[in-house]
Amino acid sequence: MKRTTIENLNDYIGEKVLIKGWLHRVRKLKAITFLILRDRTGMVQCVVENSFMDISSIKLESVISIEGILKEGSNTLNPFEIMVQSLEIINEVHEELPIEINKKQLEVNLDTMLNNRVLSLRQEKKNSIFKIQGLIAQGFREFLINEGFTEIFTPKIVAEGAEGGTDMFEVKYFENKAYLAQSPQFYKQMMVGAGYERVFEVGAVYRAEQHNTNRHLNEYVSMDFEMGFIDNEEDIMIMEERLLKYILEKLEDQGEKHLKTLEISLPKINSNIPRLKFSEALEILRNEYSKTELEGDLDPEGEKLICKYAKEKLGSEFLFLTHYPRRKRPMYTMPCGEEETHSFDLLFRGLEITTGGQRIHNYAMLLENIRYKGLSPENYEGYTNTFKYGMPPHGGLAIGLERLTAQLLGLANVRETSLFPRDRTRLIP
Amino acid sequence: MKRTTIENLNDYIGEKVLIKGWLHRVRKLKAITFLILRDRTGMVQCVVENSFMDISSIKLESVISIEGILKEGSNTLNPFEIMVQSLEIINEVHEELPIEINKKQLEVNLDTMLNNRVLSLRQEKKNSIFKIQGLIAQGFREFLINEGFTEIFTPKIVAEGAEGGTDMFEVKYFENKAYLAQSPQFYKQMMVGAGYERVFEVGAVYRAEQHNTNRHLNEYVSMDFEMGFIDNEEDIMIMEERLLKYILEKLEDQGEKHLKTLEISLPKINSNIPRLKFSEALEILRNEYSKTELEGDLDPEGEKLICKYAKEKLGSEFLFLTHYPRRKRPMYTMPCGEEETHSFDLLFRGLEITTGGQRIHNYAMLLENIRYKGLSPENYEGYTNTFKYGMPPHGGLAIGLERLTAQLLGLANVRETSLFPRDRTRLIP
Repeated sequence: MKRTTIENLNDYIGEKVLIKGWLHRVRKLKAITFLILRDRTGMVQCVVENSFMDISSIKLESVISIEGILKEGSNTLNPFEIMVQSLEIINEVHEELPIEINKKQLEVNLDTMLNNRVLSLRQEKKNSIFKIQGLIAQGFREFLINEGFTEIFTPKIVAEGAEGGTDMFEVKYFENKAYLAQSPQFYKQMMVGAGYERVFEVGAVYRAEQHNTNRHLNEYVSMDFEMGFIDNEEDIMIMEERLLKYILEKLEDQGEKHLKTLEISLPKINSNIPRLKFSEALEILRNEYSKTELEGDLDPEGEKLICKYAKEKLGSEFLFLTHYPRRKRPMYTMPCGEEETHSFDLLFRGLEITTGGQRIHNYAMLLENIRYKGLSPENYEGYTNTFKYGMPPHGGLAIGLERLTAQLLGLANVRETSLFPRDRTRLIP
Repeated sequence: MKRTTIENLNDYIGEKVLIKGWLHRVRKLKAITFLILRDRTGMVQCVVENSFMDISSIKLESVISIEGILKEGSNTLNPFEIMVQSLEIINEVHEELPIEINKKQLEVNLDTMLNNRVLSLRQEKKNSIFKIQGLIAQGFREFLINEGFTEIFTPKIVAEGAEGGTDMFEVKYFENKAYLAQSPQFYKQMMVGAGYERVFEVGAVYRAEQHNTNRHLNEYVSMDFEMGFIDNEEDIMIMEERLLKYILEKLEDQGEKHLKTLEISLPKINSNIPRLKFSEALEILRNEYSKTELEGDLDPEGEKLICKYAKEKLGSEFLFLTHYPRRKRPMYTMPCGEEETHSFDLLFRGLEITTGGQRIHNYAMLLENIRYKGLSPENYEGYTNTFKYGMPPHGGLAIGLERLTAQLLGLANVRETSLFPRDRTRLIP
């Protein structure tokens, strides 16, 4: 007999079915026992007569298969239930479960959750986080493919860093010293110059940052795109607005069940996301919130406050900050006058989820800016050579997948949105 | 005026258009000069009157924009050409190009090609390789998403190796020693057990292998899937047949232009891919090709010969070899009797492009098999704990993206199908 997944049971009312999954819950009454079986698509209630079999001795989370008749019958899960005719244990649990995962909430602390990751991910809310995350990544790709972007895969073992060379993990590469890439920045720019014009990559990046905050991961998934023949960074921001709109619509459409499980309603992007110059944001923080110590970049509190302002005064949960100071942006950033740059961050609910901007495409200007940042052009020849042979004006951005997931789902710690997070102290599992 | 990409020019015959791209070729006649402009979508011939402008002094590959009238007129590229009214140099090339890229073939050796990667990728055949590669990766995902698989992102910085712990790159992870993942094997199995049942990942993997052959990369893209509730490895092989069929159809459909540029016709998977037991393959190699020294695994010559046999005798360019010896397969492989395993390789045109099989799902059997392989279960607790709490029967496979691309496109060296290959000696660009 062929297995039916639980989401498809509806088509088989009155028929005999075979289902397989995990034993989620058991409730024994006098004459019958109710059990709930869970598979990747949902849960279903089954009824066993105690005279037929005593299933209360089977440990929860054992893998079982059930054959029975699917009958109409209302319960909290479905308008049907299964009258069990046979039950087979496929792989039995022998030990006590270290955590309880069949409740509406998983009531354990973060460390316990991550130490028991395989079990905690079976809890329905935790499970839904990564179904949503998969949809976000797919939405990112689908939208860009429709816009003529080419998917690329660039190396994560690199000889030089894109962001100035600090906070890199060192790799022993045969006789040589190499590093793990902090971003695909150089390579995606090079691919624009290689004639693809529009490229994207979804891949791991690495930051050897010492701090261990709820917003940092040492390994995370970066969703990058880069595009040529732009006028300026505004083209990138417009592309991102449309991209986010597409992703949100995809989540509404294909992630409905999981958003409901997570009790989440998504933000709307109805019209343009408001833009503030970075210097204007500092002004607002000074005047409205008496926050005077900022310079060059916002701190976490500054990000929260300016997002509060955007929500209350500008009616948006998203906010573009533009024209970041030149001395705070990497060497590839296109300057805008002496002090500013053609760059932006996108903040969402108090957190930066995107950094982007226009890049320098002129060879001489690039060398000059590398020196302006106190770096040596000789160390970047593999990259800078590209600019000798016809590089179009271009720009791009990077969105942190885990951060975007966390902010959309209202999760306070970004570790919740990484299957197996790597942080200052965590390497296992 | 808004830029039109070259592939869309057809809609604007008789109108004024703006195009942007690279100066591909120039041919000066007495009164007029022909130039070919190239953008990400194609090439178009443009005509400039010499009395208007002398463009023969502009170096090839300069980035330019052209406004002009699109007129019908036949040439080798299109049934139209552009009568140039104005031409602007956006970013000029000043140096001599190190390689010539506007010919039908790129006539340089592999090292020169890779050293000048950004330029060599502009050559039309080289360019098309990675358009095809993008489509392969997308086809892999699309098919699996339709089959109920969830996309996952698992860490590449790991504490322990899945394939026995040799050939791993070492990473300095703060105070600790860590490694780059050789495969997402443990994690994808764990995700099956975490209730997702069916998962896939497209991501980088790392092999610190010393040999520097035309079939090895030290960093490559692995397309992995893993699925639960299987009967045995045959379920995985059937899924792969359908997957490959889907990918090939997608390439025919969406990659037509690039296949034509590459002068490639794709193989057909009409019916089932033939299966041979590994022991049968050895027998055939002994009897038909007098190849007697093999044991445990095929060598490159063995792979080529058995593929020759499959093509001539079994009528297929693809061949599944099954039941590999237990002592040659990793500890997670499901044994089949004392000597063999429920595992397989897929060979295609003389090269292994997939390794897969059923995995052990029973906790006690897994510990026993880890010891059988001479390893210590204590070193794998983060992984083995998963099997205590209800793991379904499961299996999966990994396809090397670069190898599949190379074999489909008839490229002899896998480096041709990696944008920026990492091998024994190459770290730059």
